[in-house]
Amino acid sequence: MTTMYISPTLTDLYQISMAYAYWKEDSHNNITTFEAFFRKCPFNGQYAVVGGIKEFLEFFNTYSFSYHDIEGLKRICPDYEKEFFQYLSSLNTSQVQINIIPDGSVVFPNQPIVQLTGPKIVCQLLETTLLNLIGHPTLVATYARRIRQQVGKERVLAEFGLRRAQGVSAGINSSQYSYIGGFDSTSNVYAGIKYNIPVSGTHAHSYVMSFTNLSQVKDNLQIKYKNSNQIIENFKQYVFIVNNINDESEITTNKSELAAFITYAFTQPNNFLALIDTFNTLESGLINYCYVANALIELGYSPKGIRIDSGDLAYLSKEIKKKFIEMSSSYPQYNDMKIVASNDLDEHIVGSLINQGAEIDVFGIGTKLSTCFQTPALGMVFKLVEINNIPRIKISENDEKTTIPCKKYLFRLYNSSNKAVLDLITNQPNINDYIDEDGNILCVEPKIQNKRVKVKYFIHEELLVDARTITDNSIDVAKKRCDYQISTMREDYLRISNPTPYIVTTPEPFAELIRQIKNKEKVIKTLI
Amino acid sequence: MTTMYISPTLTDLYQISMAYAYWKEDSHNNITTFEAFFRKCPFNGQYAVVGGIKEFLEFFNTYSFSYHDIEGLKRICPDYEKEFFQYLSSLNTSQVQINIIPDGSVVFPNQPIVQLTGPKIVCQLLETTLLNLIGHPTLVATYARRIRQQVGKERVLAEFGLRRAQGVSAGINSSQYSYIGGFDSTSNVYAGIKYNIPVSGTHAHSYVMSFTNLSQVKDNLQIKYKNSNQIIENFKQYVFIVNNINDESEITTNKSELAAFITYAFTQPNNFLALIDTFNTLESGLINYCYVANALIELGYSPKGIRIDSGDLAYLSKEIKKKFIEMSSSYPQYNDMKIVASNDLDEHIVGSLINQGAEIDVFGIGTKLSTCFQTPALGMVFKLVEINNIPRIKISENDEKTTIPCKKYLFRLYNSSNKAVLDLITNQPNINDYIDEDGNILCVEPKIQNKRVKVKYFIHEELLVDARTITDNSIDVAKKRCDYQISTMREDYLRISNPTPYIVTTPEPFAELIRQIKNKEKVIKTLI
Repeated sequence: MTTMYISPTLTDLYQISMAYAYWKEDSHNNITTFEAFFRKCPFNGQYAVVGGIKEFLEFFNTYSFSYHDIEGLKRICPDYEKEFFQYLSSLNTSQVQINIIPDGSVVFPNQPIVQLTGPKIVCQLLETTLLNLIGHPTLVATYARRIRQQVGKERVLAEFGLRRAQGVSAGINSSQYSYIGGFDSTSNVYAGIKYNIPVSGTHAHSYVMSFTNLSQVKDNLQIKYKNSNQIIENFKQYVFIVNNINDESEITTNKSELAAFITYAFTQPNNFLALIDTFNTLESGLINYCYVANALIELGYSPKGIRIDSGDLAYLSKEIKKKFIEMSSSYPQYNDMKIVASNDLDEHIVGSLINQGAEIDVFGIGTKLSTCFQTPALGMVFKLVEINNIPRIKISENDEKTTIPCKKYLFRLYNSSNKAVLDLITNQPNINDYIDEDGNILCVEPKIQNKRVKVKYFIHEELLVDARTITDNSIDVAKKRCDYQISTMREDYLRISNPTPYIVTTPEPFAELIRQIKNKEKVIKTLI
Repeated sequence: MTTMYISPTLTDLYQISMAYAYWKEDSHNNITTFEAFFRKCPFNGQYAVVGGIKEFLEFFNTYSFSYHDIEGLKRICPDYEKEFFQYLSSLNTSQVQINIIPDGSVVFPNQPIVQLTGPKIVCQLLETTLLNLIGHPTLVATYARRIRQQVGKERVLAEFGLRRAQGVSAGINSSQYSYIGGFDSTSNVYAGIKYNIPVSGTHAHSYVMSFTNLSQVKDNLQIKYKNSNQIIENFKQYVFIVNNINDESEITTNKSELAAFITYAFTQPNNFLALIDTFNTLESGLINYCYVANALIELGYSPKGIRIDSGDLAYLSKEIKKKFIEMSSSYPQYNDMKIVASNDLDEHIVGSLINQGAEIDVFGIGTKLSTCFQTPALGMVFKLVEINNIPRIKISENDEKTTIPCKKYLFRLYNSSNKAVLDLITNQPNINDYIDEDGNILCVEPKIQNKRVKVKYFIHEELLVDARTITDNSIDVAKKRCDYQISTMREDYLRISNPTPYIVTTPEPFAELIRQIKNKEKVIKTLI
């Protein structure tokens, strides 16, 4: 699988039905603005990290119905006039202006993440695929960031979620967007190769289980000293010698596990990291690891450490760290060895382990990240906000669900300490037009309109930008963007437990316009 | 996107590390049996429906590292000997015997859904991709079946989950495997075209919102009688005439909605199904629908019905049905019109609506199905059960997590009413060997070994079959298989609330062997 071509038929039938209706009634070229946004942050949080824009832009930029697509559509919609299909085959997105908030950005509810302005028919046809492509990546990037916030900057986060991801694309999303959100590596080799993400991993329980006794380890495992050409002819025997084991019968640990570790270390002496919980973590796995690590150290190698995947990770990691400290008096290399923990970890367990002082250097996170288990779907929506320059609103009984009309601009205001103060959604491109003589902007919360705030800011940044001006869509740029934007946010917006809502508001004149548009629609509704 | 080529690098790095270790220690050609199974049914149920086997077989049958893959692996693993990469480039699955339980089958915990016997290195390398490819499809097929069981045979189930699915593959899985599980259609045009699944859908709120008033409807919308060449020159005017509306001012419903319905009906008179809840379902949408439907009926067409996507679906659907019955005295066609309901439905809401006597003919299910919201990950595992004909067991403190050793065979036993009685997991291919002189098989539950049962059966079916003997992998065959197998299951295994566990057991001699193997390992463990 290289670049995946996504057909424009990867959409809901009703988009095609509506496209046909627009075309047949000749309203398809009406100029509309549609905006994609979410109403509620996932994972009971107060922010999200944008993902999937890269994939959506690939789709957008190559949008075109193939001959095969058109033939398929004709079968599905046999009643439609054949001129419609001719029209569809010539359709592309060149007439659509596209503004986006780039991948890795920190965003909040009701902010347009993608804004399309162009012929109604094209915008409408893009909806389903757009929502599909940005939903899951945004969830993954957000969840990854939440875990990064839990563990701090120093600890290492490894993504392990491919096997439980909901399909192939979700597995690849998970690698890319967890990396953007703040992870250090993925286990997914394909994603690592394709996107240049560091790949990490060691071995599984099945490796250990595939050994049954020490005699399975050959007596001719030749191993070279790291920094000389000297050779040890029998690595197994050398492990015994280094650890003063005269005879197999003196060994009290699980021998098949020791056989597995000797063999594994022999095959990759530069990257020896052992999974030590197959039989008994402290009484077998850890001791067997030390036997083999000691021999590797004597040969000039630097064993990497251990992984635990079961049991009480807080207790076990502390005991392992004690052993490493004890061993470091003979071999200082033990000070650099890493303790890797995995086993169905989520943001809460990770936080709890850290609070307990667990000695874990690397967290491996799989299922709960790749499937976004706590919030498997982001309620992203795509709404018409303007048609032929006339603002459109969708009223709901629930004020929170009423849309904000008009094509929008989005600004983040910073104070002089470079901290984000609030985000301003406007319907005019020039933020200076809203500043009064005292240098303030009077803001009114757009939906309920009961919160007013006067803000003076130091600098501003425009968040919603022309996608065609973005020259570097690489995930490294997105990762840096995320790190930077997070650094401008107050800690209390980001925390897992009871976070503070960040302020997203509108300048007073826009709030007033929204109120008028809403009232007008409300009157129409009351007349029914 | 046509057939998706999945690279063998779509795996965890540790599989490559282990493969290298096996190769370097020269144990890679040891003959192993690995089995994929789950320990707990999803959605708090007592069964699952197999999915994803079709995609796994495509992957398995074309398994081969490309030049590009190998070059990528060399970058990721710079220390590995170059002969290993040469070896990898020649690797394929021709030496692996593959047994599977086909898509659409009803399965239970601990049953091998895929069983691979062959060189250790190949089996190990297939693990991650296998788990990825069968996990989500199995969840979707199972959830779809659960909803089908809730609604009975007659009601129609439509899958709408593409926009919220976790990526492109998940969207396509959702269409295919919900169809296999018991759904009637999908909204996903791509999947419909590719897999010949019926595609359904109508229009969205945005269609209604793109109209602002009745004058937007052109006065020259020509519409033909269905069964003659007679033409009505102005469809809008005709709608007014049929409904005795002399002037626009007499209309008390929302006029922009009426404009939308007239236009939509004009564009697709054979498939007029209107979303009626944009403004007010009963006081506007339903009445506007009837205005337009009446005109279409006069022209010889058969309007399809309405969809509601908000509000109290039980109450609204009953009120709509009353209106349809009332209208049918003038137009009997109203008896055939369908009421479609959607809005974040799940198995519980669907069940509750039916219990309330909701008059819903078609349920549209999206997010909760495509993301498997209630259980977003199936804990599918892939375990070594035999190596060089020696059974292997993985002991766990938790008896439920201890694996069942040995390469297995799986039989479903039926009584003379063609109802499934229990499933038998054996380590011998011939079930007759277990039958005693009275025609009974003495069975012992394999894990806890505290449940014994004697069973006499009428016929048996072998569930785990050689994948190479399956000639038809089509989804229609899988759908029929699912329907049939479900029909052989007692209702109480299938229900949502407090279902009965189905019996999966082992013949006494195999249970005894398991006990011996387990005890042997336990002794080894105690010695540590």
